[in-house]
Amino acid sequence: MSLAEQVLEGNIRAAARLMRDIDDGRPQAIDELKALYPHSGKAYIVGITGPPGAGKSTLVDQLTAAFRAQGKRVGVVAIDPSSPFTGGAILGDRIRMNRHACDEGVFIRSLATRGSLGGLSRSTSDVALVMDTMGMDIVIIETVGVGQDEVDIVKTAHTTCVVMVPGMGDDIQAIKAGILEIGDIFVVNKADRDGSDRTARELSNMLEMRNATEGSWSPPVMKTVAQRGTGIPELVAEIDAHREFLFTSGCGTDFLRERNERHFMEILRDRLFKNALAYMESDGLLEQIVTGMGAHTLDPYSAAEEIMASIMPGRK
Amino acid sequence: MSLAEQVLEGNIRAAARLMRDIDDGRPQAIDELKALYPHSGKAYIVGITGPPGAGKSTLVDQLTAAFRAQGKRVGVVAIDPSSPFTGGAILGDRIRMNRHACDEGVFIRSLATRGSLGGLSRSTSDVALVMDTMGMDIVIIETVGVGQDEVDIVKTAHTTCVVMVPGMGDDIQAIKAGILEIGDIFVVNKADRDGSDRTARELSNMLEMRNATEGSWSPPVMKTVAQRGTGIPELVAEIDAHREFLFTSGCGTDFLRERNERHFMEILRDRLFKNALAYMESDGLLEQIVTGMGAHTLDPYSAAEEIMASIMPGRK
Repeated sequence: MSLAEQVLEGNIRAAARLMRDIDDGRPQAIDELKALYPHSGKAYIVGITGPPGAGKSTLVDQLTAAFRAQGKRVGVVAIDPSSPFTGGAILGDRIRMNRHACDEGVFIRSLATRGSLGGLSRSTSDVALVMDTMGMDIVIIETVGVGQDEVDIVKTAHTTCVVMVPGMGDDIQAIKAGILEIGDIFVVNKADRDGSDRTARELSNMLEMRNATEGSWSPPVMKTVAQRGTGIPELVAEIDAHREFLFTSGCGTDFLRERNERHFMEILRDRLFKNALAYMESDGLLEQIVTGMGAHTLDPYSAAEEIMASIMPGRK
Repeated sequence: MSLAEQVLEGNIRAAARLMRDIDDGRPQAIDELKALYPHSGKAYIVGITGPPGAGKSTLVDQLTAAFRAQGKRVGVVAIDPSSPFTGGAILGDRIRMNRHACDEGVFIRSLATRGSLGGLSRSTSDVALVMDTMGMDIVIIETVGVGQDEVDIVKTAHTTCVVMVPGMGDDIQAIKAGILEIGDIFVVNKADRDGSDRTARELSNMLEMRNATEGSWSPPVMKTVAQRGTGIPELVAEIDAHREFLFTSGCGTDFLRERNERHFMEILRDRLFKNALAYMESDGLLEQIVTGMGAHTLDPYSAAEEIMASIMPGRK
């Protein structure tokens, strides 16, 4: 039986193996993903993002418990910054989520932020696909960070929760503006701290300044204290409300189109580059180009044009 | 006279126009960059990165003043998260750096984190190239954030300073590990706060655990209070020491090779993808693929292979 067939039967070890193959970028994983694809699209994907120290992991832990209490199976994809010393995800199997360790209805997978640009976003989509097809009802994607990578990753999610925390310094203003567009729900966590009302109010004001189009979703601003479970049922209710909105408003169709396009683009981008790289390395071309750049006798723009002319004849 | 020629004469307006063209992805900017490339390589590039709220902007402001006092011309490339509402860099021309606004020896440029994956890293290299060739002695690249994007961006710098701040929550552990490899100098800013000694000690311990190879650079951990200028002369001295190390140890040669290779790769990756996209759009192929994915009759992996076969004949 192929790995894909085992995954479709809900085999956890097979799913874990396939995810490892994806993470390692092994070519045989592609065939398994091809076989799984027609069976995908059943899981509901929830993204959790926000700046460091916002308490995202605790929130994910609480959400997992809440969804489990509803009888749903929950997959968690946690994106960790990679360490060159441990050679992978340093948070490993998420020790803090230990309370779900013996629960067969919870599957947790960490992905490291190693590898090339865009690669992580693609791996996340692929791992979410495996979780979907192995029978998870909810897949939670958690990212640590606030950069473009994270923005691209959470775009995979049906509902994205942006987690903030009161009083995190000046840069937060900049970050807020950058992530306003991606949040379907805003969460001010650690809301028992000073300044939480102000942060929530500021967020609401910024959201109101947007020229929302008729019939679009108005992102709510929630307050939680994840450590004590405060505000979690309300957050789950808002996630359900957004889900309901997506599937009744027609916005869900647009979202799926965009998500599919992005997923395809990432795969294509990756493949194009790998092929070009293989071509350049086999001919010793890369070496020549880098040497020419070092001597300032060749510029990288002209070099790229020459490579293009060779591998994509007839296009410029 | 071409834009490139004007830039080489130190024309600030021409440089600003070329940077705008780069930021907008205008094709004519490429020809100017080609013309500038042989004249590049004179500026020393300093990267400043770290999590939100670490006080990086204040530090950059102080460093700029310190380099100016040495009679050096300073360019600053500040990477801001983009806002969909202001349509670009929300911090604009860095109002807080007002004190350098009338100084002809300081050129500040904000880049927004809009656009496609990898695009920002490429734009940063290109903008740094313009600042280099217009006669800046020092180019400071400041990034807000801690993701893979930021890591790639600071790899452009000769010397990378990672700025931390005492007590920023649990995620900091994860971040620290991820950025240990990219920091040449670690700065604990806001060192007048509680816990700064502990943060500095933890950082030193983590750095010591690395198996440093013989003759490699040992990153120092500095303490600063940028707001009051405390520790800035010492930081400048460490940057000078690292520069000296790069040019006497031979490590500088390896660094330049790697940087050139990365710069070329980013340009090539971008070009490959743009060409593939143009091909797919002109033939209505993208539409067909996304529709097929929506119906689950086509998977994105097979679709990418078909496109590859068409545009890169003879390669798979």
